[in-house]
Amino acid sequence: MNAVEQSVRSPERTSENAPAAPAEPTRAGRSIEARLVERLLSLLGNPAIEFLLWTGERVSGRPGEKVQQLHIKDRSTLFTLFKDSQVGFGDAYSDGRVTVEGDLVAFLETVYESMPRGSAEQSLLRRFMSRRRGPRANTLEGSRENIHRHYDIGNEFYALWLGRTMSYTCGYYPTVSASLDEAQLAKMHHVCRKLQLQPGQRVVEAGCGWGTLGLHMARHYGVKVRAFNISHEQIVFARARAMAEGLASQVEYVEDDYRNITGTYDAFVSVGMLEHVGVENYPELGRIANQSLLRRGRGLIHSIGRNHAAPLHAWIERRIFPGAYPPSLAEMMKIFEPWDLSVLDVENLRLHYAKTLRHWLALYEAASERVKNMFDEKFVRMWRLYLAGSVAGFTTGTLQLFQVVFAPPDNNDIPLTRAHLYQG
Amino acid sequence: MNAVEQSVRSPERTSENAPAAPAEPTRAGRSIEARLVERLLSLLGNPAIEFLLWTGERVSGRPGEKVQQLHIKDRSTLFTLFKDSQVGFGDAYSDGRVTVEGDLVAFLETVYESMPRGSAEQSLLRRFMSRRRGPRANTLEGSRENIHRHYDIGNEFYALWLGRTMSYTCGYYPTVSASLDEAQLAKMHHVCRKLQLQPGQRVVEAGCGWGTLGLHMARHYGVKVRAFNISHEQIVFARARAMAEGLASQVEYVEDDYRNITGTYDAFVSVGMLEHVGVENYPELGRIANQSLLRRGRGLIHSIGRNHAAPLHAWIERRIFPGAYPPSLAEMMKIFEPWDLSVLDVENLRLHYAKTLRHWLALYEAASERVKNMFDEKFVRMWRLYLAGSVAGFTTGTLQLFQVVFAPPDNNDIPLTRAHLYQG
Repeated sequence: MNAVEQSVRSPERTSENAPAAPAEPTRAGRSIEARLVERLLSLLGNPAIEFLLWTGERVSGRPGEKVQQLHIKDRSTLFTLFKDSQVGFGDAYSDGRVTVEGDLVAFLETVYESMPRGSAEQSLLRRFMSRRRGPRANTLEGSRENIHRHYDIGNEFYALWLGRTMSYTCGYYPTVSASLDEAQLAKMHHVCRKLQLQPGQRVVEAGCGWGTLGLHMARHYGVKVRAFNISHEQIVFARARAMAEGLASQVEYVEDDYRNITGTYDAFVSVGMLEHVGVENYPELGRIANQSLLRRGRGLIHSIGRNHAAPLHAWIERRIFPGAYPPSLAEMMKIFEPWDLSVLDVENLRLHYAKTLRHWLALYEAASERVKNMFDEKFVRMWRLYLAGSVAGFTTGTLQLFQVVFAPPDNNDIPLTRAHLYQG
Repeated sequence: MNAVEQSVRSPERTSENAPAAPAEPTRAGRSIEARLVERLLSLLGNPAIEFLLWTGERVSGRPGEKVQQLHIKDRSTLFTLFKDSQVGFGDAYSDGRVTVEGDLVAFLETVYESMPRGSAEQSLLRRFMSRRRGPRANTLEGSRENIHRHYDIGNEFYALWLGRTMSYTCGYYPTVSASLDEAQLAKMHHVCRKLQLQPGQRVVEAGCGWGTLGLHMARHYGVKVRAFNISHEQIVFARARAMAEGLASQVEYVEDDYRNITGTYDAFVSVGMLEHVGVENYPELGRIANQSLLRRGRGLIHSIGRNHAAPLHAWIERRIFPGAYPPSLAEMMKIFEPWDLSVLDVENLRLHYAKTLRHWLALYEAASERVKNMFDEKFVRMWRLYLAGSVAGFTTGTLQLFQVVFAPPDNNDIPLTRAHLYQG
């Protein structure tokens, strides 16, 4: 047990469930609570934020132009933050035991920016604890349960804030002023151009969300698509869309795991599924991609990533995305290298995801009353924190978005340059 | 010792220095030599080539439209090929004990294409042997000796076939019909655009060859450059060029190792040095890049690479590039990940290097009489094989060319898209 752990544990045990009485001043004129906050701020790299305690005490990190303010409602909440800065903060925020004055994104950016590089946002204690618990396994059954918990919340809920395309992945902004729907449309064209789709070709999609990309490929590029997904709600939605749009003969939605993909195709595409695959399954995903591709085939995998291997934010993994993990580029190579697949292009779209998430967050806030009626206030705050924290993750470089194009090693039928992606 | 090794070793010992007498027919009507060739062809994946032995015997792999012919001059040469297909073939070709009928590049492509994917062009025996010998270490002193052996052969020699730019790295062909000099010029602009160079900025270059890129950056982008290189011949040449072109005040050439780079810069660039760094030194190279870059800085590393970790062709490493190693992308990540550097863009220019090498090879062949006068016939054949083999490596996907753009993790002053690379 290290010094930090000791300094937390002892007061917690004695003060459990104590009433929110004024804190006892110490020798230095500061309460034990205030000194704990100082320690917490120090672990966070001393960001320009101010803790306002239930006692009325204020404790600040470094001075800054805009000092963000955090309200802590009671003593046990403070101890929770100290014990587990990730899950503790997330749960306390959701419950309203912690509130943030002003802009939540700006507050989280301030915290993320101040943290020592490579610290992976973990308190020493959390780091110690997280060794004992990894993300939930993505076996065939585990994946189904993990995916169900996030994506089967209800299509109506997602429709409130994903925009007209129902694309739940990073958009592509050709210009800074593009709208969300424009960015999602441009993303799909960007992906299709990277895949060099030609009319009559066959595409397999691993993880197809609400089916948007498959329909887009069929409509604009004249290809036939088989799209796999294990979210029942999404498959039902996607099939209905294909029928309504007269594309059911071109796009087949298969309610099954990517590991059960069969057949050969001109293109393999997976946008936003890799986060749910688990590094231990990357060689298997690569095997599927490799066996799916004809010699002149092309593939694209689009995923949230990291600059270096690090666990997903523990609260996000526990409350929002069970089993999820954003890989480093080196980890992603475990997909391609065992099969001698050739990486042709990697594009980091980090700032595009920050913009996408800001658009989602704005729509979400506008619909928050409806979300509250669907669920409850705690749910509203939980998803607000998830979306705002994700914006901050991408703007501060804690999270990346990698779009990787690949092909069999001897496919020389590839464009000499990438200029074709930027024409018209 | 495995079966292959045994089957090679025994005949070799008994037949050493034996005269090239007609081979003794076996029960099957085939000589021992012919059966050895069949085994060799089988290990190579049975390519559409024909061995013509000193005895007049012919042994072919699979039938093909254009069967390439290989002449073997004597029995000991055949055994050498069998014992070590990489170094043995290279040395025998250099000595003229093996000759190839027709186009050498096409012959090598036929062999490379037929080899089982991931086999890394190694006979079983060679694979066994290579475990005992890695590339020569790239310590400060080892690097100096390794670099001296390749780059200090003589500027006059390289000037015969590198074209006017004296760029000894992969060019960039905006169109298939671009000339070598146009491609080298376009490559430098492509690199500078990826680095977003602005007038007045400072650039550090790790491994600068004959100084071409440094002069280009200063002339066309108005930046100040410090360029490091441990090849004495190249530094002398580069300084003379900077003087002659009136750029000596903007470009400083430093005869020193990249590990001794100091100061901070707007951009870090290294084109074609990583092959000589050694994977064990990648974190150190990353440390240098990281400490060199200002917060708004950008970096670019351009290197020959692989689809998966594999040793360099043993003959190339021994005779042409001592200490060299082309990394996989996962290995390259050892440069960036320890320092939380963010990979923004990876472009695979494999087919551009095939084109560049074809241009070099044509100029080299045109100058072969002069090369012979400078050195000797063996040297001419040795470098012909190196250039032709490199073309085949890139066209068949055995070799890759990765151009990686990176930046500190919180540099948000980066272009939203890559469209700016393709304008004008």
